[in-house]
Amino acid sequence: MTDFNLPGFADLEQARLRIAAHAQRTPLLRSRSLDALAAAELHFKCENFQRAGAFKFRGACNAVWSLDEATAKRGVATHSSGNHGAALALAGRTRGIPVHVVVPEGAVRSKLAAIEAFGATVHRCAATLAAREETAARVCAQSGASLVHPYADARVIAGQGTAAIELLEELGDVDALVAPIGGGGLVGGTAIAAARLAPHARVFAAEPAGAADAAESLRRGQRIDATFAPQTICDGLRALLGAPNFELLQRHRVEVLTVDDDATIAAMRLLWERLKIVVEPSSAIVLATVLRHRERFAGQRVGLLLSGGNVDLEALPFGR
Amino acid sequence: MTDFNLPGFADLEQARLRIAAHAQRTPLLRSRSLDALAAAELHFKCENFQRAGAFKFRGACNAVWSLDEATAKRGVATHSSGNHGAALALAGRTRGIPVHVVVPEGAVRSKLAAIEAFGATVHRCAATLAAREETAARVCAQSGASLVHPYADARVIAGQGTAAIELLEELGDVDALVAPIGGGGLVGGTAIAAARLAPHARVFAAEPAGAADAAESLRRGQRIDATFAPQTICDGLRALLGAPNFELLQRHRVEVLTVDDDATIAAMRLLWERLKIVVEPSSAIVLATVLRHRERFAGQRVGLLLSGGNVDLEALPFGR
Repeated sequence: MTDFNLPGFADLEQARLRIAAHAQRTPLLRSRSLDALAAAELHFKCENFQRAGAFKFRGACNAVWSLDEATAKRGVATHSSGNHGAALALAGRTRGIPVHVVVPEGAVRSKLAAIEAFGATVHRCAATLAAREETAARVCAQSGASLVHPYADARVIAGQGTAAIELLEELGDVDALVAPIGGGGLVGGTAIAAARLAPHARVFAAEPAGAADAAESLRRGQRIDATFAPQTICDGLRALLGAPNFELLQRHRVEVLTVDDDATIAAMRLLWERLKIVVEPSSAIVLATVLRHRERFAGQRVGLLLSGGNVDLEALPFGR
Repeated sequence: MTDFNLPGFADLEQARLRIAAHAQRTPLLRSRSLDALAAAELHFKCENFQRAGAFKFRGACNAVWSLDEATAKRGVATHSSGNHGAALALAGRTRGIPVHVVVPEGAVRSKLAAIEAFGATVHRCAATLAAREETAARVCAQSGASLVHPYADARVIAGQGTAAIELLEELGDVDALVAPIGGGGLVGGTAIAAARLAPHARVFAAEPAGAADAAESLRRGQRIDATFAPQTICDGLRALLGAPNFELLQRHRVEVLTVDDDATIAAMRLLWERLKIVVEPSSAIVLATVLRHRERFAGQRVGLLLSGGNVDLEALPFGR
């Protein structure tokens, strides 16, 4: 038994209607040379083209537009190292309500700039999950704002699942879906969409080897909720798997595959060079995973969710 | 009177059929924030997503598939600092014929790598137009290959014009079209397409201030064909305007707007950050031109041709 609501497919459908006027329907891209490298048919869902540069806008927008008028007026708040914060800031702006974002030290500069550019109030805190949650709780208490958690929130998970709905509607059936995992919002929503629209497809979560709490949680059959110290270039995937997210992973038999950062950087370079798109490391990990675990995907039709494209162009990991 | 054939709209239509099985129909992208910056409605035709990473594949493919069987078997040759060479190499491969590419010193590394990866024979030469043309003539004489000039060729111009046909079909009418200009293949084809499909649209050529022979040729009413020493980061736009291309620019009243490299680098950064796509400097110049000459485009619906996305990721011009 759980003490939280898990979203279902009907919630994803409602989310889709709710965000339709605000979110982009993002394109799918392919590359012959990447197909050849993977020996598979790869279809990339380009959420780097989503508003605010990441899939996060879907969930944030669904949460913001789910609120009743009186609650919405008091504003929303969250804690985020970047993309969810920017997404909530922009989603709040679509409804004209105040947005507070608690940002831990060490956030990617361009993501922080986006949060500010979209007009949110920024609150700094230390880079631990405890500090983030405490600061957000205080901001909510002081301002009356509603917390929109970056991933452990049924409205957010339902919004994120709309990307996979679009992908599956456009592609028809697939053999596998691969999404990056941090807190588990995107994977959770993807699993719900796949269960209805592509019930035979396997759903994989791509996780950095240096932040592999989801893999470990599934292995133990119990969610790790101790503090842990993620070490990965994937700044969007350092969060600890959420409780409802863990439940969804178990229920839908999602398999977590881990990959190290070197493979992710190489995959990021491939995506920039071959697809000619700007994606962040947290996105590139899905291609890294398919190439690293090639035998799992060979000969198959695979949908890969590229989560976002917010990088600091002055600090790219491409060496000479 | 001219001693060469100028292509017409019927040639573009034939080119389109000829290359349909090989070339990509590339998407149009937009950005709210770029629209706001320009105070105009900007639609970007993403030829960086074209095969071999640039619009050049359209013209090369049309030329290769225009040859009769016996001529084709003897192969094709060209001189190119990069994108046209890679495009011809790939186009030749689609027909299974030999391709020779004369590459001047100083070509972008990733473009040279592409020419080789597509299986063409590379011939090095000095970085002058004279050396390029002499070497190509010698290669043709020795091998029996047909020359496919990078831009002063009716088949190539017709192929390049298919990008503007797609753009105009998708957008309906526009107020203006902006394409980068080097030798004038893309602009020439764009002007032909616009004359038929959007006769009220103005056609602009975006030219680097440090390689502004097209602007000077139009000003004088006579094509500059002396040696000149282009100084620009736009490696794809260093060529001298071709003779048939000059004729097309005059005939269709194309206006050349020049812009300096600093503005182009800033525009390139905007395209990477806001559209999340990888484009080369020779593409970014179209946005730089619209922003630099804002008063010409304000309030208008503008189609911009992003010509390609082949850059060396180790040598990006984004400083800290």
